[in-house]
Amino acid sequence: MPRRVIDRRAFLGTSAGAFICTIGGRRITVRSPEDAARADAAARTVARPAQAEPDGPFPAPEPAPGGQRREYWIQARSVRWDPVPTGRDDWHDVPVRGKRTFRALTYQAMTRGFARPLAPASMPGPVLHAEVGDLLVVHFRNADEHFGQALTMHPHGVRYNPDYDGSYLGVRTRPGGFVEPGEEFTYLWEATPDSVGVWPYHDHGPNHMLNTFRGLFGAIVVRERGAKAPDVEQVLFLHSLMPSVTGLRRTLQTINGRAYAGNTPTVRARVGQDVALHVIGMDDAFHDFHIHGHRWRDASGAFVDTPSVGPNETITARFVEDNPGRWLYHCHVFSHQDAGMAGWYVVDA
Amino acid sequence: MPRRVIDRRAFLGTSAGAFICTIGGRRITVRSPEDAARADAAARTVARPAQAEPDGPFPAPEPAPGGQRREYWIQARSVRWDPVPTGRDDWHDVPVRGKRTFRALTYQAMTRGFARPLAPASMPGPVLHAEVGDLLVVHFRNADEHFGQALTMHPHGVRYNPDYDGSYLGVRTRPGGFVEPGEEFTYLWEATPDSVGVWPYHDHGPNHMLNTFRGLFGAIVVRERGAKAPDVEQVLFLHSLMPSVTGLRRTLQTINGRAYAGNTPTVRARVGQDVALHVIGMDDAFHDFHIHGHRWRDASGAFVDTPSVGPNETITARFVEDNPGRWLYHCHVFSHQDAGMAGWYVVDA
Amino acid sequence: MPRRVIDRRAFLGTSAGAFICTIGGRRITVRSPEDAARADAAARTVARPAQAEPDGPFPAPEPAPGGQRREYWIQARSVRWDPVPTGRDDWHDVPVRGKRTFRALTYQAMTRGFARPLAPASMPGPVLHAEVGDLLVVHFRNADEHFGQALTMHPHGVRYNPDYDGSYLGVRTRPGGFVEPGEEFTYLWEATPDSVGVWPYHDHGPNHMLNTFRGLFGAIVVRERGAKAPDVEQVLFLHSLMPSVTGLRRTLQTINGRAYAGNTPTVRARVGQDVALHVIGMDDAFHDFHIHGHRWRDASGAFVDTPSVGPNETITARFVEDNPGRWLYHCHVFSHQDAGMAGWYVVDA
Repeated sequence: MPRRVIDRRAFLGTSAGAFICTIGGRRITVRSPEDAARADAAARTVARPAQAEPDGPFPAPEPAPGGQRREYWIQARSVRWDPVPTGRDDWHDVPVRGKRTFRALTYQAMTRGFARPLAPASMPGPVLHAEVGDLLVVHFRNADEHFGQALTMHPHGVRYNPDYDGSYLGVRTRPGGFVEPGEEFTYLWEATPDSVGVWPYHDHGPNHMLNTFRGLFGAIVVRERGAKAPDVEQVLFLHSLMPSVTGLRRTLQTINGRAYAGNTPTVRARVGQDVALHVIGMDDAFHDFHIHGHRWRDASGAFVDTPSVGPNETITARFVEDNPGRWLYHCHVFSHQDAGMAGWYVVDA
Repeated sequence: MPRRVIDRRAFLGTSAGAFICTIGGRRITVRSPEDAARADAAARTVARPAQAEPDGPFPAPEPAPGGQRREYWIQARSVRWDPVPTGRDDWHDVPVRGKRTFRALTYQAMTRGFARPLAPASMPGPVLHAEVGDLLVVHFRNADEHFGQALTMHPHGVRYNPDYDGSYLGVRTRPGGFVEPGEEFTYLWEATPDSVGVWPYHDHGPNHMLNTFRGLFGAIVVRERGAKAPDVEQVLFLHSLMPSVTGLRRTLQTINGRAYAGNTPTVRARVGQDVALHVIGMDDAFHDFHIHGHRWRDASGAFVDTPSVGPNETITARFVEDNPGRWLYHCHVFSHQDAGMAGWYVVDA
Repeated sequence: MPRRVIDRRAFLGTSAGAFICTIGGRRITVRSPEDAARADAAARTVARPAQAEPDGPFPAPEPAPGGQRREYWIQARSVRWDPVPTGRDDWHDVPVRGKRTFRALTYQAMTRGFARPLAPASMPGPVLHAEVGDLLVVHFRNADEHFGQALTMHPHGVRYNPDYDGSYLGVRTRPGGFVEPGEEFTYLWEATPDSVGVWPYHDHGPNHMLNTFRGLFGAIVVRERGAKAPDVEQVLFLHSLMPSVTGLRRTLQTINGRAYAGNTPTVRARVGQDVALHVIGMDDAFHDFHIHGHRWRDASGAFVDTPSVGPNETITARFVEDNPGRWLYHCHVFSHQDAGMAGWYVVDA
């Protein structure tokens, strides 16, 4: 940091498609696909930490009395991803032209023992479900064959000891914080009474920002024991796909990896149903969430229809459906709404 | 979106005075008045949708038992608008020099049958009042003679069926979502128990972002049946007037279309009065709201004096006045505060 | 504001390291240390206001029955400040190279009568403590010998009459709103029942934005009478040190004036302790706050682990510690986290 003319790069923030990564201690400003390639190269050279355990070992987590072990097999995998698979903006009824696919990173649900895919690799990754008292047993495999970097799963909301934090911490990294390509690690996460809610999980490895922005995120739903699920439940990640990350020409404002109505989730419900939409911010911007024709109580009991949500924060819109029709839902940052962050909510009478 | 050098425009966000509109499916980056003129030209060519009714028709809304019909006549109208009518910043006691007026779009309250104006065209438009059970009957006329585009009124907080959503939805647009110059449309909006609160309404026609940023917004106040109004009640929209929208040289951070104390609303109260200030975000930025010398409970019951508010979100500062003097209120984003987003709150003993 | 080509400076926001000050009515866009020097020069020329008292005088505040006078002596002082005193990023275990110190402004706690320092000048300034009913008697001295400008202390959360607002208000400035170098002023601030909480104080003199960004901020903690303090209590200011303010080459995302784990506060607790972390935004950005391995109830009672916090807003993470280990805490805006806004939370079993 010598005192000299101010670096122009210092003026750029993520809202402008640029961001600054710290990768293994090296700072890289990412404004272009070439910069992202430099960040990837740096991440590939991060050495496996010694993984000393100065604070542990910790007792092995177990389910609480009455709780269950809930096992998941999840692999991280690179895929070509199309954020506008219909090729259309169904709100404005027009085509979206030009090259659209890019190389994403996703979490993919697998059957027991990673035998075969349970579903296509997708953005977001699979929703993990637990009830209070359960132990989430998440077998994670880094199956990426393209980027060649250590990856992880870092959860919000659940309880875990440092072994299962899933974070790269330099010399203090524990095993689950550095899972190299071809390796596996099993995370043990406890659903405690204060875990009730909906939470994100995401990469927290040595190149966490870039790889999370590429698609390495998903959700955890924790309910009270025996609680009934809503009739309609949908997790909606509000994020963006920046040119520096995708190599595409402009930033797409995306929901679950997709831009524009008809590509973003079309949520369907019927009058009388108990509906829950869980909205999670997953980029560096602040968003807010509006559903036309609907209001609900926030956690404080106030009626709202456009609450704000920050990065990795969750807000839930939950209501008994009473208003049939085809409705728009969207982020109410106008520029996000018009750049793809909108979708359909269709209610049958 | 061919893969090539990153478009520099992709780096610009609304915080920088630029925004990306989607108008009838065409994307236009607005960084200058010339870009805005292009967006306007595009909006003028958006064809009237066929307005099929695949999901309806819906039953005509009526007031609930005991409720009333509350009729309003409101026209959209272009006016020359001066954001600094005193020509001064009364906080710093200095003149604000240079050209200031620009062509705004506003909602104007009219007498029954649009016979004559009830008040000058202003920013924000008139406050609409209802109690739970009432039906708001809002006769809207697009009386703009300058921009030549379809306009609408889209409400928050109230209940409406898709006919009265007031949103341009491409081929799925319903009648209230595309009101061309010279046309009228009557919106029917229900004040239901979960409508209690203060909410924005704004344009949601084919050029909604630009036209909302020009001034097409107002507020709806819904109270419990028979609830007493606060002694002092003021709606404060926090927004900005960008050079691309106004043709002025710099961004003004505005409250109700005005910048700098003495131009923004000077709110007056007396000790002992029940005071309610309703603060609504109406641009793409996040704001927060501070009143010197005062604290209040937020919806959760916590004491606050600087709560955050996002686009089209509302926070209310409500308290019994006990502190006489001349106080500053302002957005606590320092840069907004210093660029005009501040005003006087004067309390008499 | 003549109508002409849009000023490029209008495109820059504080997220990009630029901000617009209004100093004595003069607007200065600050993008570089040279611009900051111009702002400082302007601030030095702001004349002492006449300090008429059209609305007062006000009765002298006293403690409520049972309350106490709590006296503090605090001076504003310029210091060379090193945001990375260890020279290392302890999270990534790497050195942080280059010139780092700059001329900051801080509030420093002094003994009675300003006899001698109670502690080194630091960022943030001292925590002021009060219980409901107490009167904070804050003797403030502008001891800066470098910048030559009037400074103040403006508090949040507490009650005060306009004499003790600590704000420059042009011709309406009262004595505590303009304390020139070498001068003293005693603020009288009341801890009322609605003052319970944790609040910031900061400069609100004629150059408030620049001087607050330089480090003129601190916290006030108000408790119910006789309430027990948490076992572990830490105030964490989330802010940034911009090149225009520091002359350094890039923006540091800082906590309490420090960047990178090992420089930011390392918070320590033991299992079973009552822990309270009070997080306050102190720049123009919105932040959110995550602690690995922990959740808590927000003011509404909902479980959270990453709540948002705006400028001069406070959120509190309070919980009974039950999870030993070394944990990362950080702002979850990824770009802030990677540019220094992270620290250690170490829990012993």
